[in-house]
Amino acid sequence: MPTLNEVARRAGVTAATVSNVLRNRGRVGEETRQRVLEAVAALDYRPHLTARALAEGRAPTLALMVSSIANPFYPEFALAVERAARESGHFVIICNTNEDPLAGRAILQQIAGTLSEGVLVMNANLDFDDLHTTQANGTPVVLCMWERPDDPPGLPCVAVDFRLAGKLAGQHLIELGHTRIGAIVGSKSMGIHASRYDGFADAMREAGLDIVTTNTIHAPDTVQGGYAATFELLARDAGITAIFATNDLPALGAIDAAADMGRSVPHDLSIVGITDILLAQQWRPPLTTVAVPTVEAAGLAVALLREMIEEPQRAADRSNRRWRLLAASEPHLVVRGSTACCLRR
Amino acid sequence: MPTLNEVARRAGVTAATVSNVLRNRGRVGEETRQRVLEAVAALDYRPHLTARALAEGRAPTLALMVSSIANPFYPEFALAVERAARESGHFVIICNTNEDPLAGRAILQQIAGTLSEGVLVMNANLDFDDLHTTQANGTPVVLCMWERPDDPPGLPCVAVDFRLAGKLAGQHLIELGHTRIGAIVGSKSMGIHASRYDGFADAMREAGLDIVTTNTIHAPDTVQGGYAATFELLARDAGITAIFATNDLPALGAIDAAADMGRSVPHDLSIVGITDILLAQQWRPPLTTVAVPTVEAAGLAVALLREMIEEPQRAADRSNRRWRLLAASEPHLVVRGSTACCLRR
Repeated sequence: MPTLNEVARRAGVTAATVSNVLRNRGRVGEETRQRVLEAVAALDYRPHLTARALAEGRAPTLALMVSSIANPFYPEFALAVERAARESGHFVIICNTNEDPLAGRAILQQIAGTLSEGVLVMNANLDFDDLHTTQANGTPVVLCMWERPDDPPGLPCVAVDFRLAGKLAGQHLIELGHTRIGAIVGSKSMGIHASRYDGFADAMREAGLDIVTTNTIHAPDTVQGGYAATFELLARDAGITAIFATNDLPALGAIDAAADMGRSVPHDLSIVGITDILLAQQWRPPLTTVAVPTVEAAGLAVALLREMIEEPQRAADRSNRRWRLLAASEPHLVVRGSTACCLRR
Repeated sequence: MPTLNEVARRAGVTAATVSNVLRNRGRVGEETRQRVLEAVAALDYRPHLTARALAEGRAPTLALMVSSIANPFYPEFALAVERAARESGHFVIICNTNEDPLAGRAILQQIAGTLSEGVLVMNANLDFDDLHTTQANGTPVVLCMWERPDDPPGLPCVAVDFRLAGKLAGQHLIELGHTRIGAIVGSKSMGIHASRYDGFADAMREAGLDIVTTNTIHAPDTVQGGYAATFELLARDAGITAIFATNDLPALGAIDAAADMGRSVPHDLSIVGITDILLAQQWRPPLTTVAVPTVEAAGLAVALLREMIEEPQRAADRSNRRWRLLAASEPHLVVRGSTACCLRR
């Protein structure tokens, strides 16, 4: 088995350069890179980085726990995480829990500390006790987009102010003159989207508007979920002129439902979502939504996790102070074609 | 550190049952499952399955190499792979190559045989030499949806007849009376979609129709790619009444482009795609497409890979005969709202 040094000698570079090429990090010129790769191929060198890392008690992957890879938000987020992780030579293992805390626990037990030296958690519906156990056993855990900055989870996290996102969405509809507004909450009543709905309620209350509770529906966080919820909302109250959805996917489903009911969006019905996934601008009409800082949050989460992996003591000191929660930038409204002035009074 | 047997004793079950619960396999009643999980928690047992597997020279993950996780087809496929893999206690590591064969090589070198005991390749644009090297080094490789059943790749694969898919799409448009048909090929000219275009050309030739080469455009395999290509196609020939796209995403982009140009789909322009991703039925109008057997191909690919992992000799014997290529079911046309009879003559 050839060694890293033999590869370096053949390529006429240092071992560090070979390592950089193989880990895709550092700045290496294209010509040098080619020479290293040729030497690797000629000697049939296989870098047992993983085996070595495992022998040292660590593995060069990060696990990203998500609740459903079929929801297009998660692949977008995973891509951002992967780009950030690649810079430190980490691969990302994407693990689906499919909203099942027991599946999540089984995955954590198998991968934490063995396959992965750190765990990123993105809305994976995990049992917090399991996460604390994982952390206590020495594998750092970071929550990627904590929805309630004012209510820290007791775990390192990157916080995004989703309550503000809900408020901005609500204010936008109210400024357009809408007063009878339906709401689609993409989870159960105490679920992950509760703070987004709270923000919407803030906007309504501040404008002196009543929330009609029957005009709020909890639905699966999918296009289909939003589609069915919109039919139900308009059956309950045909006078609704706007719909606030706590996530883009159900908002896109609401646009589909309006089209199939022969209601024109935005003139008969305005629709707003939250997140700004790529599909939001690709739908027709394109979706007005409140954009959250997805790429930034991914970068911050990876940076925080790397710090905890590389300098566990410093990270621990910091997290005892106030480094536990990193705040990402504020959400902002992106106006597109799915919202317009209310024509009905 | 408690052992598996101690957990089994405490839960009053066999060690095999504990193992089944932890690996999410086998049939275990909910009550027993709960008892096992309680014993696991009470003893703080952490199954070092991975460490053990690595000590034995294998790891309980499968790697799935894809070219872009941002393309919604891949998460759908990954989900199907993950479901099939879970049954044998495997986690799936999703690895993006972002169409870069060098990144693919680096990933293969780091994970094959160490982190993963098998590699599934889904259109990852990898160098075939790298795949042969991986295979020769003892890590089984399976190509998940090989596009040309009549031209086997020399590696184990699951084949899907994409040439037939292209032919079915073309025949559908021709039967509707379309003769001036634009084509959007979602890759470079000799790329992965070439066989789909060949099938379309088969249908045109058999109907005695000429392919106007300027009415064929190669474009990125994305919604945006199809959007721009449609503007370009209709600028070149405003008399085009239908568009064949080699993939659903550019077809969805074509629907967007038509909407933005004020051309009604399907009456002014019929559009057909290939694959039948979930978005196809969620777009408005919903997309007529040729469905390929995604879930079936995922199941076959995982089964073939497992066979190669578990019985390497038998798999080798078989592949020397004709087991190298498993054929998935034939594609079939799904007619939705994006195609209609040609009104222009």
